[in-house]
Amino acid sequence: MSGNSIGKLFTVTTFGESHGIALGAIVDGCPPGMPLCEEDLQIDLDRRKPGTSRHTTQRREADEVKILSGVFEGKTTGCPIGLLIENTDQRSKDYTNIAESFRPGHADYTYQHKYGFRDYRGGGRSSARETAMRVAAGAIAKKYLKHIAGIEVRGYLSQLGPITIDKIDWDEVGNNPFFCPDVDKVAEMERYMDALRKEGESIGARIVVVASNVPPGLGEPIFDRLDADIAHAMMSINAVKGVEIGDGFDCINTKGTKFRDEITPEGFLSNHAGGILGGISSGQNIVASIALKPTSSLHLPGRSINIRGEAIEVVTKGRHDPCVGIRATPIAEAMLAIVLMDHLLRHRGQNAGVDSRLSVLR
Amino acid sequence: MSGNSIGKLFTVTTFGESHGIALGAIVDGCPPGMPLCEEDLQIDLDRRKPGTSRHTTQRREADEVKILSGVFEGKTTGCPIGLLIENTDQRSKDYTNIAESFRPGHADYTYQHKYGFRDYRGGGRSSARETAMRVAAGAIAKKYLKHIAGIEVRGYLSQLGPITIDKIDWDEVGNNPFFCPDVDKVAEMERYMDALRKEGESIGARIVVVASNVPPGLGEPIFDRLDADIAHAMMSINAVKGVEIGDGFDCINTKGTKFRDEITPEGFLSNHAGGILGGISSGQNIVASIALKPTSSLHLPGRSINIRGEAIEVVTKGRHDPCVGIRATPIAEAMLAIVLMDHLLRHRGQNAGVDSRLSVLR
Amino acid sequence: MSGNSIGKLFTVTTFGESHGIALGAIVDGCPPGMPLCEEDLQIDLDRRKPGTSRHTTQRREADEVKILSGVFEGKTTGCPIGLLIENTDQRSKDYTNIAESFRPGHADYTYQHKYGFRDYRGGGRSSARETAMRVAAGAIAKKYLKHIAGIEVRGYLSQLGPITIDKIDWDEVGNNPFFCPDVDKVAEMERYMDALRKEGESIGARIVVVASNVPPGLGEPIFDRLDADIAHAMMSINAVKGVEIGDGFDCINTKGTKFRDEITPEGFLSNHAGGILGGISSGQNIVASIALKPTSSLHLPGRSINIRGEAIEVVTKGRHDPCVGIRATPIAEAMLAIVLMDHLLRHRGQNAGVDSRLSVLR
Amino acid sequence: MSGNSIGKLFTVTTFGESHGIALGAIVDGCPPGMPLCEEDLQIDLDRRKPGTSRHTTQRREADEVKILSGVFEGKTTGCPIGLLIENTDQRSKDYTNIAESFRPGHADYTYQHKYGFRDYRGGGRSSARETAMRVAAGAIAKKYLKHIAGIEVRGYLSQLGPITIDKIDWDEVGNNPFFCPDVDKVAEMERYMDALRKEGESIGARIVVVASNVPPGLGEPIFDRLDADIAHAMMSINAVKGVEIGDGFDCINTKGTKFRDEITPEGFLSNHAGGILGGISSGQNIVASIALKPTSSLHLPGRSINIRGEAIEVVTKGRHDPCVGIRATPIAEAMLAIVLMDHLLRHRGQNAGVDSRLSVLR
Repeated sequence: MSGNSIGKLFTVTTFGESHGIALGAIVDGCPPGMPLCEEDLQIDLDRRKPGTSRHTTQRREADEVKILSGVFEGKTTGCPIGLLIENTDQRSKDYTNIAESFRPGHADYTYQHKYGFRDYRGGGRSSARETAMRVAAGAIAKKYLKHIAGIEVRGYLSQLGPITIDKIDWDEVGNNPFFCPDVDKVAEMERYMDALRKEGESIGARIVVVASNVPPGLGEPIFDRLDADIAHAMMSINAVKGVEIGDGFDCINTKGTKFRDEITPEGFLSNHAGGILGGISSGQNIVASIALKPTSSLHLPGRSINIRGEAIEVVTKGRHDPCVGIRATPIAEAMLAIVLMDHLLRHRGQNAGVDSRLSVLR
Repeated sequence: MSGNSIGKLFTVTTFGESHGIALGAIVDGCPPGMPLCEEDLQIDLDRRKPGTSRHTTQRREADEVKILSGVFEGKTTGCPIGLLIENTDQRSKDYTNIAESFRPGHADYTYQHKYGFRDYRGGGRSSARETAMRVAAGAIAKKYLKHIAGIEVRGYLSQLGPITIDKIDWDEVGNNPFFCPDVDKVAEMERYMDALRKEGESIGARIVVVASNVPPGLGEPIFDRLDADIAHAMMSINAVKGVEIGDGFDCINTKGTKFRDEITPEGFLSNHAGGILGGISSGQNIVASIALKPTSSLHLPGRSINIRGEAIEVVTKGRHDPCVGIRATPIAEAMLAIVLMDHLLRHRGQNAGVDSRLSVLR
Repeated sequence: MSGNSIGKLFTVTTFGESHGIALGAIVDGCPPGMPLCEEDLQIDLDRRKPGTSRHTTQRREADEVKILSGVFEGKTTGCPIGLLIENTDQRSKDYTNIAESFRPGHADYTYQHKYGFRDYRGGGRSSARETAMRVAAGAIAKKYLKHIAGIEVRGYLSQLGPITIDKIDWDEVGNNPFFCPDVDKVAEMERYMDALRKEGESIGARIVVVASNVPPGLGEPIFDRLDADIAHAMMSINAVKGVEIGDGFDCINTKGTKFRDEITPEGFLSNHAGGILGGISSGQNIVASIALKPTSSLHLPGRSINIRGEAIEVVTKGRHDPCVGIRATPIAEAMLAIVLMDHLLRHRGQNAGVDSRLSVLR
Repeated sequence: MSGNSIGKLFTVTTFGESHGIALGAIVDGCPPGMPLCEEDLQIDLDRRKPGTSRHTTQRREADEVKILSGVFEGKTTGCPIGLLIENTDQRSKDYTNIAESFRPGHADYTYQHKYGFRDYRGGGRSSARETAMRVAAGAIAKKYLKHIAGIEVRGYLSQLGPITIDKIDWDEVGNNPFFCPDVDKVAEMERYMDALRKEGESIGARIVVVASNVPPGLGEPIFDRLDADIAHAMMSINAVKGVEIGDGFDCINTKGTKFRDEITPEGFLSNHAGGILGGISSGQNIVASIALKPTSSLHLPGRSINIRGEAIEVVTKGRHDPCVGIRATPIAEAMLAIVLMDHLLRHRGQNAGVDSRLSVLR
């Protein structure tokens, strides 16, 4: 089906622009009988919400999600779940100078080429605003994965510009605005961000998402391999320019004996593969990492053209993130959850009753 | 549809195992009227073929493809094109010790978990052998893209283990067994590979694929963005563990003013984005890069378990590549061509007649 | 994608239950640049609306549709169009005796089997209420087909129980509550319906939908033939039990020389095929006919069981249609429009630039 | 995916023309561990084969199917199954007068419009020859349905031109060339067919297919309802012009109290619905009926045009069926099996573990 849907059995379809009336989604294929309420979704939406620290955009988005269907007496019915978030805080006047300009590094230029016409306010459909719906839909998947299948999906910031973390403490992730798991790096990150803001610049980030307690066997080779679908989902997030599974690009210069994860009766001895072998989950943690580019929405002027092909200089006003990576963690978690949910159902449909005769090793 | 198909309008479906009777594919959705013959496909199959140098596996694969349908009087009819390659050189006896073992780093273990049963000979469906069909199908896409739309798809090896290239000369790529575009690195790569073979080890590689002369406007946001579909296609190739578009992971530590590609009336000033903005092609070269892991098929013993969960040591005999990256270039080109073909048709269907009022800039 | 979506390039996804908060739809893939506003959709929704005559259900449904996205400055942007209709007039108390019963002839029993749990109010997702969204989405397709491609989609009631029409006057269709094109049958139909209502019974109907000025070449053999997709779309409408193309079941006892539509340079001599040959449109009118079963929601008692498997008698209270066919015409038109829209885009994508060298004949 | 695939989890993709080198199919999504061999498929192919009686075409088709992949040590592996049938008996010379003509009632005209170019020999891709692959693929589904799920799929001829059957004895179906279940009608059918052949005419037929022992709960409302997918699959068969479920078009003039199938603790009291309620299987027999048009390939001349738009007279030479319905029964069975297989896997994936708390009633 058209490009705004993802997933074969667990399908998420979204609509909505940055400055439109509302954002919405239809989540189709959630199995029946699972308790679900708006609070389940609001938690992750709040984690994504800008305006919660001086380091993120100052746009206030209420982001209150409503469930319009698919839930009865507090449980999912198996029928499609309609979700709605009304846009409340758009400042249209901030974008009027952009109607005929193409902001360098943004999708304005390509949307004009593709559609011949675009909603220029705040980036329209290309704005990161639409990721709110992904997070809401992903929360449904996260809940099912956790409560029905015991799978946990969590992410963290592993690099902010030049600053890399040295250790991972999951309990720290929620204690700072960066989703940083290394408490000793937080102050450094704050100073770096403040300097960036003064400079008027932006920087990129690396996010890592991990799924634990994943059953082996998920993935549909050869094209719908689990890693291929994860890469697809991650790369579909605005600002993502790279995806890795396990060791990723580090494996280029790793010897074979070192890279392959040996197995003993007690479990695997390493996890360079990131939990996926031959496109199918092995039972080990699934580890994916994404690179997010620096925002192109800057107060610093950039050269571009307008719709008549004339040279212009563009200065983006309004509210922007100096580092979109600050908010990407819940979005990446949501996308991983959506993919795993789809594959859980697909594998269950294809291979019910298969007896692999193997234990699950981690 | 099930996992062995890729693409919405231009759809490729494949079948076939390493040691089965034949490999095959159905290529559906190729527009009518294009001249096509077996030689068109054989060229790329021969580029992929092992046994052409001492650096690749010594398995002789004839890889002669036959066109069984969809072509009449030398031209495509618009009806599905059936392709067939008969397996001629499988040495089944090389694999008999593997029937009950799981080679570490291979898909044996996960296939057993998923299906409860597997064709263990040569990796069965998980073997890289199936990529022959992708290359054959991709050749059809490549031809259409080039002759009808003027789009060229080419790739090269940009890194072999620790050795990185310093320059790109497209004319050199076909002159060595590595698809290396830097003539001054070839001898070093050969020495490195010889040492690797003596050691019994393997190493990874990085391949870059480039599509030039791409019309702007390809890609279907938000989920079927062009970069998302490219990432999906690339990650579906055996041994791929990472995908980047444009600067990829380098953008994490790049400032915003430096990363964004400014535009002038004469064209873009840079191409950090890799030719894709907001998930849609901009008209610039599309640049994607993939990381291929070192092969796990080694003569050096590795620890693993057998089907009864007992600890064993596995030594893989038979014929293997010390660096699968050596053959990946034609496969990566094929996958990029298949994705671009699908998107060309989708965009043409969705947006025929759109007048963007813009010139194409490179 | 899961079961609540239809279409490959022009995709409609819906949600919403009879007594839920709202009904909604996402229409994805509408090309950009087409003028669209809520009035365009409201026209067909009003045609479908119950409570407009004594012959239809007395439930008052405001059915006011809102466009939430995908339209900017009065034109489609090419981005997904979100639609919403808030349910305003549900009388929940009418259904409380049904929570544990299965109304014979309804989907209660099968929904319970499938999901183990159901929203029993008014039939939940199985209610004909959800067809409101199909009509709203179909109105978008209808507009594009008409204004961009010159294709007209119209339907009429050709049989109500035992009463068949003798002539077709398109101007009469909108003048009576039956969508009956034969003014001389209207009074008879009204008397028949009044008698039916007094009896407490229901009856079936036959609807015919016609698409005119269709370009030849639409349809994607062999599985996505145009007639196959039309049959799929029609049979997906609640209460439909049969679909015919052209002469349909009459062709069983028609000789070959009589059935085949001969062609002259001036055009076809007949249209037994209903405008589709080999699964592809021929340029002639596309004619499809559907059979709608009599409603099972009756005040007359019926034997059934409850959730404990005990024998019960069920009397449906509340508001019901004695003939659902009365409202099906706009729904059937909408489904035909949705299918034609999808195929128009698909054909345009697959075969742009094909020169058939033939004129269009009607 | 493109038009030559059907099914979401159990996907069948085919290729091949009437006079091409071979026909083939890829059956993807068959669960692993099921015994399968070529004989399983050959049985149904032989039932479909022409040349077995004087009443069917005299073209001798060997129709020997080969399994090229997806089966190992006699059982399915879960990987895609490649099937191949080589065309052996095509008499190309019979069709040379058709290269520039459009046979009335055939797809020649519409294929020319769509593709601008066609393989004219024997109808190319539009020929009924391609149904051989559907039957082979359907045999895999039939086997799984029967041996794993206990579902039986069988069909029969219920009407040949004006001759309707009076009784159904399944044991008779295989005893005559018509798949006629009423032994007392066979002689009449033979005389009728002989007269038809002398006349040079053709006639239509009605086939009924029945699936028994179907579990309740199959079907994915609202668009992928089981009846909608059955209608799609049936209408995709060449020559089908109508599809009914249960009473079909008879329900138009049936009162509601009579049509609805009442339920008692011992089971249903009738099956007017044809085993499907609200688009979901109820556990009762699924009953579908199709109308097949009379063949347009006649020795009797018909008026048509050629590629230059000039009036011509067309006489079809070569070998033809006076009644294609004679062979349609195995094809219709195959399509029903393919749809049920897909839905069985989809339901199992979506709703595993659902406890409906109901018994299965028939």
